Amino acid sequence: MAIDFTKYIASVPDYPEKGVVFRDISPLMADGEAFHAATDQIVQYAKDKGVEMIVGPEARGFIVGCPVAYELNVGFAPARKEGKLPRATVKASYNLEYGTSSLYLHQDAIKPGQRVLVTDDLLATGGTIGATIKLVEDLGGIVVGTAFLIELKDLHGRDQLQGYDVFSLMTY
Amino acid sequence: MAIDFTKYIASVPDYPEKGVVFRDISPLMADGEAFHAATDQIVQYAKDKGVEMIVGPEARGFIVGCPVAYELNVGFAPARKEGKLPRATVKASYNLEYGTSSLYLHQDAIKPGQRVLVTDDLLATGGTIGATIKLVEDLGGIVVGTAFLIELKDLHGRDQLQGYDVFSLMTY
Repeated sequence: MAIDFTKYIASVPDYPEKGVVFRDISPLMADGEAFHAATDQIVQYAKDKGVEMIVGPEARGFIVGCPVAYELNVGFAPARKEGKLPRATVKASYNLEYGTSSLYLHQDAIKPGQRVLVTDDLLATGGTIGATIKLVEDLGGIVVGTAFLIELKDLHGRDQLQGYDVFSLMTY
Repeated sequence: MAIDFTKYIASVPDYPEKGVVFRDISPLMADGEAFHAATDQIVQYAKDKGVEMIVGPEARGFIVGCPVAYELNVGFAPARKEGKLPRATVKASYNLEYGTSSLYLHQDAIKPGQRVLVTDDLLATGGTIGATIKLVEDLGGIVVGTAFLIELKDLHGRDQLQGYDVFSLMTY
């Protein structure tokens, strides 16, 4: 029987600021069967795409991507904020509402030609995931798909990812 | 055949400061088979302890704990820094070299009496993991084990965890 995953999302009004409804995945993660079933949907998507490596931005991208990597016996590379990766990195910047932020990937994280899934908990405006894609491509990786637990349609993140395949488990 | 996991750890001298050797798990994570095998060792440990829930501190605790939760069909709760969890939380503080820091857990993350595994990539002085244990116990959880990929023996983290079972895959 198909699980209604939205039952496990806590909608928190006015967080992190007034007028915003935060979609909290922690009840989904706290339920062993729901977390397993949600992960399996991304596992199946990644399998269909022939994924050889998974990359996710810190920190919730780790929650989504690491179990998928485990199940597929492929590697996982964390895209991290400044000062978190100890060895030589590549860098990509992206716009926030005010100012910019940057993500980093170890230079040896991706082998040229590797088929990569980029994943995060939530697709909003697509800034974070766009930067993560850029890092993978800078290292010669091929982004064969992107996967999210939640997609916020009104923020049009999918438009930022034109040319890339986008899978999302739930939409709001 | 047993895998020598230390082959997959990058030792980075003078990071994050002079005189410190940073043990970087990213080559282990990047290798699908090694990451899977390392995770399986913690899965087996957790199974033996009858674990019903896993808690890990941000962000590398997610990398270790989430695949274990997936494989065991149990939940995962992230212990996070200030301002990252949107709903009602409990808080625990711990000492850093200079000053203190705090970790938070959602109040509904743990059910009273639940058997919990606390996990992170690395056991150093034990400050982070001690705070994570305190959060779990504040919510009525029973910490039946702690598991790490790496234990830094010279920092005596194990002494801070007296009364708790400690499993580590590698020691330095």
